[in-house]
Amino acid sequence: MALSFSAKLMRGVSRCAALVTPKTAPTSCRYFSSAENSRVLVNLNDKTGVATMQLNRPPVNSLNLEVLTDMTIALDKLQTEKDCRGMILTSSSPGIFCAGLDIMEMYNPQEDRLREFWRTLQELWKMMYGSRLATIAAINGHSPAGGCLLSLTCDYRIMAQGKFTIGLNETLLGIVAPFWFQDTMVNTVGHRETERALQLGLLYSGENALKVGLIDELVSPEKVMETAEGQMQMWLKIPDFARQLTKEQLRGPTVQKLAQHQEADIDHFVNFITKKAIQKSLEMYLNMLKQKKK
Amino acid sequence: MALSFSAKLMRGVSRCAALVTPKTAPTSCRYFSSAENSRVLVNLNDKTGVATMQLNRPPVNSLNLEVLTDMTIALDKLQTEKDCRGMILTSSSPGIFCAGLDIMEMYNPQEDRLREFWRTLQELWKMMYGSRLATIAAINGHSPAGGCLLSLTCDYRIMAQGKFTIGLNETLLGIVAPFWFQDTMVNTVGHRETERALQLGLLYSGENALKVGLIDELVSPEKVMETAEGQMQMWLKIPDFARQLTKEQLRGPTVQKLAQHQEADIDHFVNFITKKAIQKSLEMYLNMLKQKKK
Amino acid sequence: MALSFSAKLMRGVSRCAALVTPKTAPTSCRYFSSAENSRVLVNLNDKTGVATMQLNRPPVNSLNLEVLTDMTIALDKLQTEKDCRGMILTSSSPGIFCAGLDIMEMYNPQEDRLREFWRTLQELWKMMYGSRLATIAAINGHSPAGGCLLSLTCDYRIMAQGKFTIGLNETLLGIVAPFWFQDTMVNTVGHRETERALQLGLLYSGENALKVGLIDELVSPEKVMETAEGQMQMWLKIPDFARQLTKEQLRGPTVQKLAQHQEADIDHFVNFITKKAIQKSLEMYLNMLKQKKK
Repeated sequence: MALSFSAKLMRGVSRCAALVTPKTAPTSCRYFSSAENSRVLVNLNDKTGVATMQLNRPPVNSLNLEVLTDMTIALDKLQTEKDCRGMILTSSSPGIFCAGLDIMEMYNPQEDRLREFWRTLQELWKMMYGSRLATIAAINGHSPAGGCLLSLTCDYRIMAQGKFTIGLNETLLGIVAPFWFQDTMVNTVGHRETERALQLGLLYSGENALKVGLIDELVSPEKVMETAEGQMQMWLKIPDFARQLTKEQLRGPTVQKLAQHQEADIDHFVNFITKKAIQKSLEMYLNMLKQKKK
Repeated sequence: MALSFSAKLMRGVSRCAALVTPKTAPTSCRYFSSAENSRVLVNLNDKTGVATMQLNRPPVNSLNLEVLTDMTIALDKLQTEKDCRGMILTSSSPGIFCAGLDIMEMYNPQEDRLREFWRTLQELWKMMYGSRLATIAAINGHSPAGGCLLSLTCDYRIMAQGKFTIGLNETLLGIVAPFWFQDTMVNTVGHRETERALQLGLLYSGENALKVGLIDELVSPEKVMETAEGQMQMWLKIPDFARQLTKEQLRGPTVQKLAQHQEADIDHFVNFITKKAIQKSLEMYLNMLKQKKK
Repeated sequence: MALSFSAKLMRGVSRCAALVTPKTAPTSCRYFSSAENSRVLVNLNDKTGVATMQLNRPPVNSLNLEVLTDMTIALDKLQTEKDCRGMILTSSSPGIFCAGLDIMEMYNPQEDRLREFWRTLQELWKMMYGSRLATIAAINGHSPAGGCLLSLTCDYRIMAQGKFTIGLNETLLGIVAPFWFQDTMVNTVGHRETERALQLGLLYSGENALKVGLIDELVSPEKVMETAEGQMQMWLKIPDFARQLTKEQLRGPTVQKLAQHQEADIDHFVNFITKKAIQKSLEMYLNMLKQKKK
């Protein structure tokens, strides 16, 4: 599953994913984030081989082109680190795991950037869903839409108890989760639950998410990371080679389906999102958000 | 999903689905059924955009060519009504939702009518399973075989508590649910449960149907319609366009599979059902029913 | 699903599956096993049409080429017996249903025999998974790896309560369940549970196996056979023809998938298992077993 980085993506490397070891880091940890305000904080524990990737774009970790690019580059870097065996994905802002795709990328867009945005999301999804690493989502807050999708690409999901919700709620905004979002959901909770959830734009409570299998564990917020680390030990007990081949056999066909229809999916997305009616929907939604802030 | 109505189907229009507004109807309701004893009673509430379709072929709403034709025409009409957004499918005879296909269509058949019968069932299934409307089955009584299938084509299923059963029990009669019945079941309850249920011809109690996900809710008989109407409001909160595209993405491949094998499926059915052994089975079953009546 | 017996397989007939009726047998039973220490004990009850096949290779019923060959021949024989309608698969050693593939077949192998071994397993799986017989696994003990697979090819699974475990735990040994093991598991417990179970090499307790649907019933050890016989009566109430066609429609595509990739799958297996790293893993595992024995 080769990643063909575009020139634009590569230019991003210098500004966001330089290998930096801060002075305060314990010797066994390496930081993959730049010194400035990074949108993605990554550190790799050399002793355990487990990396942590924190989404770090306050206030809600919404995924714009830059965040997606940073994540892609950081994951690619981790995957080429021979000693890195697992990754925990979480948020630096307890209470919000990830609010999903940044609507500003879709509202009144420039087509070039819009295409790049969608392609980067596709690449990130393919890398995450087929990652050679054992991946665990430590869902320490709300996780709608693209946030839910990110967690579904992991091998295991642990969510914080509380008033947090998770789900692919795209239809609430008048937009449609593409087929590969759906495939990821079907592979996780089955066809029937996906039909109901995606048509209704359901956001599940932690309890309901656990019941339908959208998450694997529900623990108190302060236990999320510790539970993730404990679970990771179970995954790392398995010889990497056997685990990776098993994962590839099971997820490969779903990854390849997008790979085969990637350009058509970009065209479809751009065509859909730039429709007047959809732009109107997004505008209404943005106005609603502004009203809420006041 | 264009419906190619046969000449025979079109001739049926005048006698069963003329647009008639009875004098007693509230102004917001329009009736799509003829004044005479209609086999399918349809009314559309212009205010809510929700239609109700009642199967009305006493005593057990068995599906013969005429009922299937009437349903197809009525659904087609509703789908072309711009303001119609949802449909609740139910029975005019509490206690029996639908007994399934009329065995008299399959016993000692004329080939032309048999082919027309099967094709009409295929068309109805394709229309229902892929309907642009939000569809809810208000299962107010027994729902074996074809009755179960009809409910499975809907987006949501509410069943009346009581001694009622539901399931694809074709093997009990010595016949076999075709692949698209199976696909619909697999999409609803998964592969394993479908294997067991279809091989054993299982008829589920309401409680068991709920447990395996064959229905979504089980309520007291007098609450079935009211629950259906409440649930429909949830579906209609979602922008139609987004909901329909989501449904099409999820159900489209299953619908297209039948569309691609439709003629072969008719040949297969006709060939199977006219076998001596199958005719013998049906005869025994009919004799058993006659004995019961005495 | 024609079985192309190799010459080697055919030579095995004389030594292991001759039709023998011991003097002590009740008149309604016929034994398909040879008088000497048979690796597979088969008897067919002529009155009920139900055969029992007991794995009989103490101490743990590990599956080497000879056992697989005997099973294949015995099943083929049963399937050509007109009066045989069902088969219960169990073990002659309560406490161990089947330990899975014999590691000695894979450790330091001769390529010819290794190919024959894998092909015979493929053939047995295809025959079992698509069998015209109603098949029930009476899992009266541990059932890891290939033992679990055998039970998954049956129509119904009953397991003995106790400390027994079941699961496809191949990754624990550093090897990978091939795609058709995975397909069988996905068809039984769904995609998500399969992902987790196969990557982690999970061995389920009876209680957990029941919860995820890996088995259908959990009963006390002394009730396993009696429960299997009772369940078999339900399956035999259904006309064979209808039950078999239903099963073929549901399982056929999975069987055909292996049939189409059978040679490539053998090449892949031989290539994989003869890798130095894999041989090293197997050696370590064998040494561990030897240590345990001391």
